Amino acid sequence: MTDSLEKLKSVVESYLATHLGKDVDQETLAQSMEYSTLAGGKRLRPTLTLATVELLGGELSDDVIRASCALELLHTYSLIHDDLPAMDNDDLRRGEPTNHRKFGAGMATLAGDGLLTLAFQWVTGNGLPADVKADLALELAKAAGPAGMVAGQARDIEGEGQKLSLDALRYLHRQKTGALLHYALLAGGIITKQPAEVKDLLTQFGDAYGLAFQIYDDLMDVLSTAEEMGKKVGKDAGEEKNTYPGLLGVEGAKAELHQALDAAKTSQSQLAEITGQSFDAFDDFLAYFKL
Amino acid sequence: MTDSLEKLKSVVESYLATHLGKDVDQETLAQSMEYSTLAGGKRLRPTLTLATVELLGGELSDDVIRASCALELLHTYSLIHDDLPAMDNDDLRRGEPTNHRKFGAGMATLAGDGLLTLAFQWVTGNGLPADVKADLALELAKAAGPAGMVAGQARDIEGEGQKLSLDALRYLHRQKTGALLHYALLAGGIITKQPAEVKDLLTQFGDAYGLAFQIYDDLMDVLSTAEEMGKKVGKDAGEEKNTYPGLLGVEGAKAELHQALDAAKTSQSQLAEITGQSFDAFDDFLAYFKL
Repeated sequence: MTDSLEKLKSVVESYLATHLGKDVDQETLAQSMEYSTLAGGKRLRPTLTLATVELLGGELSDDVIRASCALELLHTYSLIHDDLPAMDNDDLRRGEPTNHRKFGAGMATLAGDGLLTLAFQWVTGNGLPADVKADLALELAKAAGPAGMVAGQARDIEGEGQKLSLDALRYLHRQKTGALLHYALLAGGIITKQPAEVKDLLTQFGDAYGLAFQIYDDLMDVLSTAEEMGKKVGKDAGEEKNTYPGLLGVEGAKAELHQALDAAKTSQSQLAEITGQSFDAFDDFLAYFKL
Repeated sequence: MTDSLEKLKSVVESYLATHLGKDVDQETLAQSMEYSTLAGGKRLRPTLTLATVELLGGELSDDVIRASCALELLHTYSLIHDDLPAMDNDDLRRGEPTNHRKFGAGMATLAGDGLLTLAFQWVTGNGLPADVKADLALELAKAAGPAGMVAGQARDIEGEGQKLSLDALRYLHRQKTGALLHYALLAGGIITKQPAEVKDLLTQFGDAYGLAFQIYDDLMDVLSTAEEMGKKVGKDAGEEKNTYPGLLGVEGAKAELHQALDAAKTSQSQLAEITGQSFDAFDDFLAYFKL
């Protein structure tokens, strides 16, 4: 019996609201970090970790929740820095002024730096076994760092104005968006001390999910209205960013999305088979993609 | 018998030059990260860790060197972000264009993010025992994060144009500069698995050293020529930054420096007494302060 996604999401919300401020020792910095972290959002990444822990029989202790919520801190940092004038120069995020529009670019840079660093404090500052903590920190750093997410962002900046091949676009997104989702699933396997073959299947699910997620995001940018998204839409095309619909057309991108979802479902079935557990709860994550 | 500081510094230089690029998977990002990291500097922080490990009988294995050099990655990130247009807006660092003047503010932001994240990869991605790795990552995050260095930077931004009290200035610098030097010493104690009383004395030395370091830096800003510093001097006063000479006058700041150095020497003697080892090698670090 697993908790619903809504329940897990509220566990994350509550942990962040209660604990984030305690680890910050400067008032404006705390406000700035909380402003972006407590601004809502799907809480997809820590929820994926918590759901995975539950599916594999782990207990959602305070230690596990702290270690899992670290990923939301890290995700929030990436959004704050991405929005900066020196990067995407976005004014709105989830319908509200971006962090630098509210606190200035200097404090927003520091808020991002603080959240990134605090993420490592939360994966290691808890009562989990030392090998689990060291492993989580290493895998988080690999996923988020200069051969993972940060490399993807660098590739994104460099790719602007250039037409990428489909392979290059896939590679970019595997780093930029996929790496953290890969980690979200892997973390669940590390926390519950799974054998390598289970961790491999978890990350295969995460990789396919991450690809689907990016394609869907690109498609929504083309198909949604500004009101639904809470940010400027059609922006990617205007700035000559590389997107799946841009390269493949809307129908082609939808086909690519379905392929990624099929791959995720295959990993899901294999996980059920190898662990003898039901992984039906992953259906709730796949239900996110509505076309 | 311990290695000279020059020898330890060259160990750090060589490790950084050989290994940094391997962990970066995007060309411009790698160039940007290497540009600032391999630009010289005293390598004070990792050298302090390595000297401490040696003094306490530890071996300078590749694993120990990797874990120690992480702190130089983290220090370099803090310089890159500090120099950004949104922060101090500096054009020169060690006599060369700052990272954003060379690569643009977007890539410089990412280079800093990459170095910060890679620091955690290096403290946990090595063959040291899991409890040592988890402990290093936690203490590094606490020192560098939003209750440590990043809080000090936020305090610095907020304090501009306001006159701070001496206590407030000390607190700011304990976070901004002191925390990483505190960690540099503590890391040596963690790696060699020292008892709490030795680790306490190590961090007391680090705290006094960090205070001396900041006062000395402030004094040099007033007393040196631009040529010697490789950056603009007299800049702090022009921007109404709070400094020790600004608050206490040059002679008062010198007295404060001597007090900090005396405290460091006391911790050094106590370390020798409690461990039964000579800590004379710390004299080389204290010889840095020439007035």
